[in-house]
Amino acid sequence: MAFQIPRGTQDILPGEVERWQYIENTAREICKLYQYKEIRTPVFEHTELFQRGVGESTDIVQKEMYTFQDRKGRNITLRPEGTASTVRAFVEKKLYAQPAQPTKLYYIGPMFRYERPQTGRFRQFVQFGVEALGSSNPAMDAEVISLAMELYRSVGLKKLKLIINSLGDADSRKAHKEALIAHFEPRIGEFCSDCQKRLTQNPLRILDCKTDRDHELMKTAPSIMDYLNDESRAYFEKVQAYLTDLGIDFTVDPNLVRGLDYYNHTAFEIMSDAEGFGAITTLCGGGRYNGLVQEIGGPETPGIGFALSIERLLAALDAEGVELPVDQSIDCFVVTLGDKPKDRSVSLVYELRKAGLTAEKDYDDKKMKAQFKAADRFNARYVAVLGEDELEKNMISVKNMESGEQKEISLQDLAAYIKG
Amino acid sequence: MAFQIPRGTQDILPGEVERWQYIENTAREICKLYQYKEIRTPVFEHTELFQRGVGESTDIVQKEMYTFQDRKGRNITLRPEGTASTVRAFVEKKLYAQPAQPTKLYYIGPMFRYERPQTGRFRQFVQFGVEALGSSNPAMDAEVISLAMELYRSVGLKKLKLIINSLGDADSRKAHKEALIAHFEPRIGEFCSDCQKRLTQNPLRILDCKTDRDHELMKTAPSIMDYLNDESRAYFEKVQAYLTDLGIDFTVDPNLVRGLDYYNHTAFEIMSDAEGFGAITTLCGGGRYNGLVQEIGGPETPGIGFALSIERLLAALDAEGVELPVDQSIDCFVVTLGDKPKDRSVSLVYELRKAGLTAEKDYDDKKMKAQFKAADRFNARYVAVLGEDELEKNMISVKNMESGEQKEISLQDLAAYIKG
Repeated sequence: MAFQIPRGTQDILPGEVERWQYIENTAREICKLYQYKEIRTPVFEHTELFQRGVGESTDIVQKEMYTFQDRKGRNITLRPEGTASTVRAFVEKKLYAQPAQPTKLYYIGPMFRYERPQTGRFRQFVQFGVEALGSSNPAMDAEVISLAMELYRSVGLKKLKLIINSLGDADSRKAHKEALIAHFEPRIGEFCSDCQKRLTQNPLRILDCKTDRDHELMKTAPSIMDYLNDESRAYFEKVQAYLTDLGIDFTVDPNLVRGLDYYNHTAFEIMSDAEGFGAITTLCGGGRYNGLVQEIGGPETPGIGFALSIERLLAALDAEGVELPVDQSIDCFVVTLGDKPKDRSVSLVYELRKAGLTAEKDYDDKKMKAQFKAADRFNARYVAVLGEDELEKNMISVKNMESGEQKEISLQDLAAYIKG
Repeated sequence: MAFQIPRGTQDILPGEVERWQYIENTAREICKLYQYKEIRTPVFEHTELFQRGVGESTDIVQKEMYTFQDRKGRNITLRPEGTASTVRAFVEKKLYAQPAQPTKLYYIGPMFRYERPQTGRFRQFVQFGVEALGSSNPAMDAEVISLAMELYRSVGLKKLKLIINSLGDADSRKAHKEALIAHFEPRIGEFCSDCQKRLTQNPLRILDCKTDRDHELMKTAPSIMDYLNDESRAYFEKVQAYLTDLGIDFTVDPNLVRGLDYYNHTAFEIMSDAEGFGAITTLCGGGRYNGLVQEIGGPETPGIGFALSIERLLAALDAEGVELPVDQSIDCFVVTLGDKPKDRSVSLVYELRKAGLTAEKDYDDKKMKAQFKAADRFNARYVAVLGEDELEKNMISVKNMESGEQKEISLQDLAAYIKG
């Protein structure tokens, strides 16, 4: 009987996994420079957390969650995103009470959404995200945006487009919401059933509708820009001024609406501009969510963050033809001739590895020629050959595969020779 | 409303997460030296994979799996261990057909078992494991064991005990099994109901029973050592000879039985000998499973591997009082006085970070004294102070916190000064 991987998921195999490691290491290094600390939350949470934290009206909660009951009948959901869990931990573990504030966190891990699988969209995918909790300083918005841009830049992406918007504070959003209702309500019958629901639940999300995006009312819809109060406008201007200071190009797009309910003030997306990247061009989405911590049961705490998928980052690298600098060579391959040398090679490679060298040998009683072929495949910098004669003299013959230089040295000196 | 983490799971927070990162980085580095490549399989699989690959008669499959139906009614299980998924990928992605054999793989990731939570036992826990597929060379058994020992040694554990056993090949196991049945059958009524089932399903597992371990028949049970045929005995002796060559101490324990059905030949466990480590002393378990690949639908392929939990490794470190070398300092904290310096500090820390320095600043309009306190908390190597006067001259005052040396330098030179 042969088994298949679950639909919409993928195995990441040697040859491909090195690219993931490279990206994740880069993300971790950047987070260290920016002083974001890793947090790891469980892969599943109580379902209500996402209903509350992601928002009942979202597609994620309504259609895409992997929800099940555990053996005690508790409703459990595989996390569809990372912010709700991070904020749950922030509240439950009282991170807000620690002396160093704001609390700057990052996560890297699998997320789960039951969507129709398509190119670049998986049911299990990996998100890297950051959350800065406890600061309502526009400098923090610029920092979070710059961190995302820095990751893309560091792995070699060039064709990027940053768009930003402000959703304003609660008052601004309320005024805008009323204007949206007044605008759409008279002709809401011409819109899809989802939009009809959105009119009362969250009219802002009508602007995000894919079905109705060409309706004429979309073009004339009231812009949030006209409803920002003075404070919200000043805040947004400060964010833009900081981004300019950092030399980060951006475009303001008043139609940028985030699909989640808890955003306010700054919203942003980073898209790939690469040709042939396909339909899904958004690489990263984020924004401010000053109401979320309270919603999850914590003290009033401002927050801002983003999430990006590693799968899409890889797709963008492919679209731009960027090769990551992944080293696939080893330091030494040990070739043996005869039974005793073969036995001795077991401890020999062990000694090389203990000395910090990447080392490999044959495990299959292969002929010498096949062993040299294997050394080639491993892209060995040095090939060491151990025969009966050499072993008797406690010597080994080593060849530098780059220079071609070959010499016989004492077995004990092999590691030092390769390192030097 | 406040939300709680699901029972039996844990958040790994800054302050603790650095220990996890250190251990995982160490494991990855050792795998690189030993030339094991990472594989990442999905967090869930079709339930049948584990029924087949882990074994219907095991506690894991019978009692501990997180199984649910997805929206199409497929039976899905959160992986309880890593071997079955790795072998499924090996077969499905035809890794056995690649030129470089054996295939040496490792994984690090969350596993899930619905057990009663207790100290050191979680429902979601992280396993690191390796699988070497395609070699039936006893040198491979020694390599896999040595890799596990090397990880523990590298993180600083000293009080370790390695026990090994051989379960023999299929013929040896069959002869032993018959002897076990003959031994237990006449008095099986005195044993627990699980053991009564085991008598027909897998009598070897009676030896592993916690309920009946003091029954007199346990002490006199036939030992596998007396049923190993010549080939199995020679294999086991070779494994021991290689371990001795590598300088790795071990004890042969004929009662070492693995809870999973698919093991043969070498079985091993690494335990902590540390005082006060508590009831669960096994850190790592592994062994050979030459029948598993075929069981999962692949070509006949020998295999050997181990799995260990990071949680238990951490507990062993605590029991031995080992502190991991985790660096918590930063390169530079920027203190500002006045609005303009504050604005300028946003791009200043950005520049420092771009130069590869860990840098932090205040986001809260804190007074200078509080900013210096924060610099202290971040354990900054340098504190840079930017006031209105300095900014006007394009200068900044920097203090080396170790030497106490203080000087004023050009803003542009700050990164180079700290790096030099």
